[in-house]
Amino acid sequence: MSNVDTVIKDLVIANRILAKEDVVDAYGHVSIRNPDNPKHFFISRSRAPELIERDDIVELDLGGEPVRDEKRALYLERFIHAAIFEKRPDVMAVVHAHAEDILPFGIAKATKLRPVIHSGSFIGAAVPVWDIADKFGDTNVLVTNMAQGRDLAKCLGENNVALMRGHGFASAARSLIEVVRMSVYLPRNARAQMRAKQLGGKIKYLSQGEIDARNRGYSPYSTETWRAWEYWANKASCGHLLSKPEQPPENQHDHKHDHKK
Amino acid sequence: MSNVDTVIKDLVIANRILAKEDVVDAYGHVSIRNPDNPKHFFISRSRAPELIERDDIVELDLGGEPVRDEKRALYLERFIHAAIFEKRPDVMAVVHAHAEDILPFGIAKATKLRPVIHSGSFIGAAVPVWDIADKFGDTNVLVTNMAQGRDLAKCLGENNVALMRGHGFASAARSLIEVVRMSVYLPRNARAQMRAKQLGGKIKYLSQGEIDARNRGYSPYSTETWRAWEYWANKASCGHLLSKPEQPPENQHDHKHDHKK
Amino acid sequence: MSNVDTVIKDLVIANRILAKEDVVDAYGHVSIRNPDNPKHFFISRSRAPELIERDDIVELDLGGEPVRDEKRALYLERFIHAAIFEKRPDVMAVVHAHAEDILPFGIAKATKLRPVIHSGSFIGAAVPVWDIADKFGDTNVLVTNMAQGRDLAKCLGENNVALMRGHGFASAARSLIEVVRMSVYLPRNARAQMRAKQLGGKIKYLSQGEIDARNRGYSPYSTETWRAWEYWANKASCGHLLSKPEQPPENQHDHKHDHKK
Amino acid sequence: MSNVDTVIKDLVIANRILAKEDVVDAYGHVSIRNPDNPKHFFISRSRAPELIERDDIVELDLGGEPVRDEKRALYLERFIHAAIFEKRPDVMAVVHAHAEDILPFGIAKATKLRPVIHSGSFIGAAVPVWDIADKFGDTNVLVTNMAQGRDLAKCLGENNVALMRGHGFASAARSLIEVVRMSVYLPRNARAQMRAKQLGGKIKYLSQGEIDARNRGYSPYSTETWRAWEYWANKASCGHLLSKPEQPPENQHDHKHDHKK
Repeated sequence: MSNVDTVIKDLVIANRILAKEDVVDAYGHVSIRNPDNPKHFFISRSRAPELIERDDIVELDLGGEPVRDEKRALYLERFIHAAIFEKRPDVMAVVHAHAEDILPFGIAKATKLRPVIHSGSFIGAAVPVWDIADKFGDTNVLVTNMAQGRDLAKCLGENNVALMRGHGFASAARSLIEVVRMSVYLPRNARAQMRAKQLGGKIKYLSQGEIDARNRGYSPYSTETWRAWEYWANKASCGHLLSKPEQPPENQHDHKHDHKK
Repeated sequence: MSNVDTVIKDLVIANRILAKEDVVDAYGHVSIRNPDNPKHFFISRSRAPELIERDDIVELDLGGEPVRDEKRALYLERFIHAAIFEKRPDVMAVVHAHAEDILPFGIAKATKLRPVIHSGSFIGAAVPVWDIADKFGDTNVLVTNMAQGRDLAKCLGENNVALMRGHGFASAARSLIEVVRMSVYLPRNARAQMRAKQLGGKIKYLSQGEIDARNRGYSPYSTETWRAWEYWANKASCGHLLSKPEQPPENQHDHKHDHKK
Repeated sequence: MSNVDTVIKDLVIANRILAKEDVVDAYGHVSIRNPDNPKHFFISRSRAPELIERDDIVELDLGGEPVRDEKRALYLERFIHAAIFEKRPDVMAVVHAHAEDILPFGIAKATKLRPVIHSGSFIGAAVPVWDIADKFGDTNVLVTNMAQGRDLAKCLGENNVALMRGHGFASAARSLIEVVRMSVYLPRNARAQMRAKQLGGKIKYLSQGEIDARNRGYSPYSTETWRAWEYWANKASCGHLLSKPEQPPENQHDHKHDHKK
Repeated sequence: MSNVDTVIKDLVIANRILAKEDVVDAYGHVSIRNPDNPKHFFISRSRAPELIERDDIVELDLGGEPVRDEKRALYLERFIHAAIFEKRPDVMAVVHAHAEDILPFGIAKATKLRPVIHSGSFIGAAVPVWDIADKFGDTNVLVTNMAQGRDLAKCLGENNVALMRGHGFASAARSLIEVVRMSVYLPRNARAQMRAKQLGGKIKYLSQGEIDARNRGYSPYSTETWRAWEYWANKASCGHLLSKPEQPPENQHDHKHDHKK
């Protein structure tokens, strides 16, 4: 099975996981850069993530246009992905979604979304809020062309997540597994922060040092990251699609013991 | 299959979707105007939406009375539908439900429900609150005759949604798919607004221009609208009942490409 | 099938419904008075409501003791039921449960739980809070004898529901269907009231006249009440146990029409 | 079947219950001391609790190291369990998890988590908050060695639960059934307390006398405790793994009756 075959299968899994974990519903999408051609990326045609099959995956260029003849409708907002892949060569995977519990932080801008729990560390210390109206005035609030996508990508900058006012978020990571994990824990972090605020008193956020330490400790195929991927895939009823990396997850800890111990 | 057959099948799907998405429970209903006779509409007999089959659908006139001999019990509140269809010739479909998260906005009238998220835009800039007690005093809070239905329809006016104090909401749209979509996203918008309020500070609502731009961009059988309908129908285990419109959803974007590109 | 057989089958359904609707979990119980002997009532032996079968149902007297030889363990708190049946001859069915969203109203006594939504009207205008510590000091907070049960029943008085501080609620009605319906909508009313309070401003409660009008309009086997029972039983996977009353639900509304109309 | 076989089977059930009840997701773990060797304990290898089978269970020593040759990856945070078993000979089972609704109490330290509902009594009157940064500065917030585990165990002291700032909680009990029950009701108590606080006014907590009375009334195989275990195991689809204790749950109440009564 070629690398691209695996990538596409993983993208199907990612779609199903995001649906099962309520990050997306009928709307929202996830993409992955073509590992053989960094100027292309894979994403589904216009379809609800829960229903996506391998044949729904299309290949687009960094202008958001299909690289092969394609008669099926595409996502209106594919330019979010194209613009982030264009601006950020380090990014291998992108999610755009409307997960409900992050929405308040895009609407009530006085409160910044910040990591308060360890699984939320991956969103990074700063989560900018992009308001499409600032530059484009009255729109349908969707990112429907490259100019809008590029403005969003500029706001995202070197961060991992940008909130989109009245709409949702865009997240970017160096691997598909990581962008899915971040997108699943982003609403949980938002809920923990909202409720801590309701309890009142001072809130203790993760420190920059803690965020950095966590980033250093994880890689896409670490045991710990794989554990979540395997779990979510099974929950989303696509455990049978899992491709174990050719090298099994590196055993990060020395717990081989002498039989005589 | 005649148009009416399709309409009835779609109405069964709509019932099941609204149940699955927690908009209705044992109570609540959805109706569609008869496309062949605008003075009639279809709605289920008195039954929980999740259990409805094609044979449960009855045809009522604009006084809320069945047009054929009918021994089975009807919804007490069918007059909501009759009165809205009577007053609003542009309306093709109506939902009445008690979705939990809109209820607070009907009880605590100081806070107006307003669109804060893009998927909530369809509720429109203003959502009036109708209080049955204002005109009818102490009732069982249900709309059980045409006089009450007409008073509600008057309060609804040209809006898309009216809240009903201590009870629920009525929503109206130019198609069944749109009234279902609006009814699904209405509670989500309510939650986002409630939580943004709890975060504190200024809330940014959708602008009138944004609401208008979104209305212009959607039609009942657009790719984007169909995507949600297909998704929800499958989630509600009635994907097999889906009738694709005879013309496949128009491909709204030019992404046909020359093979030589 | 004798009346008692039907009653026991209905009690199994009621247990399963309360479990499915998250009113009970491993704990909580529902009982029904023996229609042939008002000094006895039926309730399950000590078992989680979701797992209850017909053979789990036992018959107790108004002292909370089994009327037949019974080696299986009984609910510790069966005295709640015995004491309410003893004090209130009008009551045919009782629920005791710990539904999560009513708990705050038993703990933060400054805010009274009151009906704000039409489906919550059945809890009545006043919901007293019983605190076991007031009379019995430091206990395990459970109602484990008749003295405690009678004190709770006294606090309940002629109301339909009493909250139990730090513990749950007891509800009483003239039929099993009604006590289940009330217990399902009680937490929903609590949530609507909590969230309305968070929105701020004045809250509009149901008026006494509205509560009265609603009580007049419902009977255990009305079309509207049966609709919920049928729905919940199916949702709880025991639709096959449903016993339609011998007289089909009375058609409350005149919608028989002349064929020539 | 040996005692250890039963213990391992029970540990599989405990993993599945904690997953089903949303106490753990891909992360979080539960352990039980080896009844035949108090210096060893059983825990799964690094795997999501929902997926755990008997072969995943490994045996570790009180330093957190496997007692047999083990090539599979282990939980990074197994030292939480090792350190608590080391410090607390009375403890037979430990849970570490990130249940969402306890998180705010670890972040907003001004509000202490305290028992407000009877099922929350088992957390005890005091729930300390452990902040890994106090002693270890900027870490990845995980407990990855014995020094950190011991510091957490010291903070836990003789209590039943310690919150871990920005991370989760650790709970300890004298039996597996009890640590699972406590971990399931801990988030429910947290929610009840948060919402009572939002209602405002004075909150009534369980008294020390009530907490003590409840502790006296429960044992791991009491009828009441077993009822929850049986229920949760069935809900988690592993009812078939249940091992009834050799002595059936003691019938705590005298309700054997003379046939002639």
